[in-house]
Amino acid sequence: MNEHVSIGIDIGGTKIVAGLVTLGGGVLYKQTVPTATEGREQILFQLQQLIKDCVKEAHQQRLPTLKGIGIGTAGQIDFKQGIVRSGTSNIKDWNDIPLKQEMQRLTGFPTWVDNDVNVVALAESHLGAAKGYDNVVFLTLGTGIGGAVIQEGRLLHGEWGGAAELGHMSVDRNGPACNCGYKGCLEAYASGTGIANRMKHMLKNQPERYDGDIENITARDVFQWAAEGKPFAKSILDEAMDALAYGTVNIIHAFNPSLIVLGGGIIDQHNWIISDLENRVRSLGISSLVQSVSFKKAAFGDEAGVVGAAYQSFLYNEFVQKEGAPHET
Amino acid sequence: MNEHVSIGIDIGGTKIVAGLVTLGGGVLYKQTVPTATEGREQILFQLQQLIKDCVKEAHQQRLPTLKGIGIGTAGQIDFKQGIVRSGTSNIKDWNDIPLKQEMQRLTGFPTWVDNDVNVVALAESHLGAAKGYDNVVFLTLGTGIGGAVIQEGRLLHGEWGGAAELGHMSVDRNGPACNCGYKGCLEAYASGTGIANRMKHMLKNQPERYDGDIENITARDVFQWAAEGKPFAKSILDEAMDALAYGTVNIIHAFNPSLIVLGGGIIDQHNWIISDLENRVRSLGISSLVQSVSFKKAAFGDEAGVVGAAYQSFLYNEFVQKEGAPHET
Repeated sequence: MNEHVSIGIDIGGTKIVAGLVTLGGGVLYKQTVPTATEGREQILFQLQQLIKDCVKEAHQQRLPTLKGIGIGTAGQIDFKQGIVRSGTSNIKDWNDIPLKQEMQRLTGFPTWVDNDVNVVALAESHLGAAKGYDNVVFLTLGTGIGGAVIQEGRLLHGEWGGAAELGHMSVDRNGPACNCGYKGCLEAYASGTGIANRMKHMLKNQPERYDGDIENITARDVFQWAAEGKPFAKSILDEAMDALAYGTVNIIHAFNPSLIVLGGGIIDQHNWIISDLENRVRSLGISSLVQSVSFKKAAFGDEAGVVGAAYQSFLYNEFVQKEGAPHET
Repeated sequence: MNEHVSIGIDIGGTKIVAGLVTLGGGVLYKQTVPTATEGREQILFQLQQLIKDCVKEAHQQRLPTLKGIGIGTAGQIDFKQGIVRSGTSNIKDWNDIPLKQEMQRLTGFPTWVDNDVNVVALAESHLGAAKGYDNVVFLTLGTGIGGAVIQEGRLLHGEWGGAAELGHMSVDRNGPACNCGYKGCLEAYASGTGIANRMKHMLKNQPERYDGDIENITARDVFQWAAEGKPFAKSILDEAMDALAYGTVNIIHAFNPSLIVLGGGIIDQHNWIISDLENRVRSLGISSLVQSVSFKKAAFGDEAGVVGAAYQSFLYNEFVQKEGAPHET
């Protein structure tokens, strides 16, 4: 075989997945370890071990020379310099880490580092739901809300890589406080955390409606109660969908995409959100912009992170590009 | 002289300006005519005449061969095809016009057509306040609010050219209705029209505050009353600034720019808006993103439209690019 292969690494709060990924999106080898709770140094050591194992495996499988390493991690990433500026509270001491430089020094491979949602967008864009689309917005609805934007076939990074913080678009300047310090963010209404918080807030003001422990309410409860027809839960989901619709129209006005791809745990479990959102969006905003957008569900499952992370090597490695691999156009 | 020269045309609701523009931003010749009120056919005829005069003038000045024609016009422009999709209500019958194709057919010159705010952004980006910045957002505050975005040195167009409709970003899903059909848009709070409408709305509900004709109130009145210390006018401007701050933070979260350039009639007359906005923005949103943005006033005056329009020829004309003119990087 002479297909390009590189190493993809997906760093999450609970686990780190590393694998050998082909240009066609095949995962030839995959290893998962729990994210070290000791933080930084221990995680860097884990990464080194995972890469060693990948290299060994590539050798055993007689694969061609690996093109490099691509890493996706939660948090705000300085893409140009490959630095984790501020990570997630789920990973200890995961801030101000010159990850690109450190990995290149430790392994000798050219390395790229980007935000976890951005690398998922690369996978969807080159191999998944957004294949063939040049202008795409990705929204992942889970514990939080993540965003990524493809413009003219390329990831939109902005000045240092902080662009597309779409979960923190406010749709109500008088709205509820968000974790980020801002008000009325999409994430404060329509993420798992947001939905649970809004339900708690309502029930604290109307304690007669609920006799359980309000603090233990989750988004899952709210979806279940709404499915059972409970009006108070339905009103919370209606608010979440309204906020999501306004946020999505703002995004469409800003980026003029032809496709919006929705993914994440909430979408996986509640497919109806996509068509409901589409209907709401079509009745709002500037017609020429909102009518020219399609909506799709993300195609990739768990492997999006590893595949998308690895894809950075194929896209940004000059050597691979010269040989005619698909580069960003 | 051997500097590149092209024709720039700025089509507005009241006048059309055409000129000969150099790569350095010099305007060697300029002609202004009132926009024909008969609409489409008459305007196309005016454009043809203006171009003929420019060509004649270039000949008389012994200028090098003109590189092409760049046009900026209000409305939604399909940039790729050079079609005016929906124009402004200020220009009669200015919709669905294949302007690029039509001008190329009539004149023989390669022609580019873009939105008026986008071409102003080109002028500011290559020759004005944003020179040297790669990631910039432009906001023009006038009768309406216009937006343009430069990402990695290039105008962000989106799928067909409708991106950066930043005046129609909602900051309150329960806010006032906007002309565009959406709710809580920046334009509904902080444009000239928006400020006047919010004042009218308030005074209609509190008629004892004002004994003039409420329908005749303009934004100019509101600014003047606020300067005189009248609380009801100050509260309208405070609301406008709050909405503008939330909209700007949303924009920063979406695009991660290093610079925001503000222009338009309202900014020209009320410089204090820039520092007031900067102060408000710095206290909102995600710190790493809002703290890394500078704010500047637009550098160009009236000629931004003609110069920026002409600049399209320098940027998009392959012939010029091969000779080493600054192309978009």
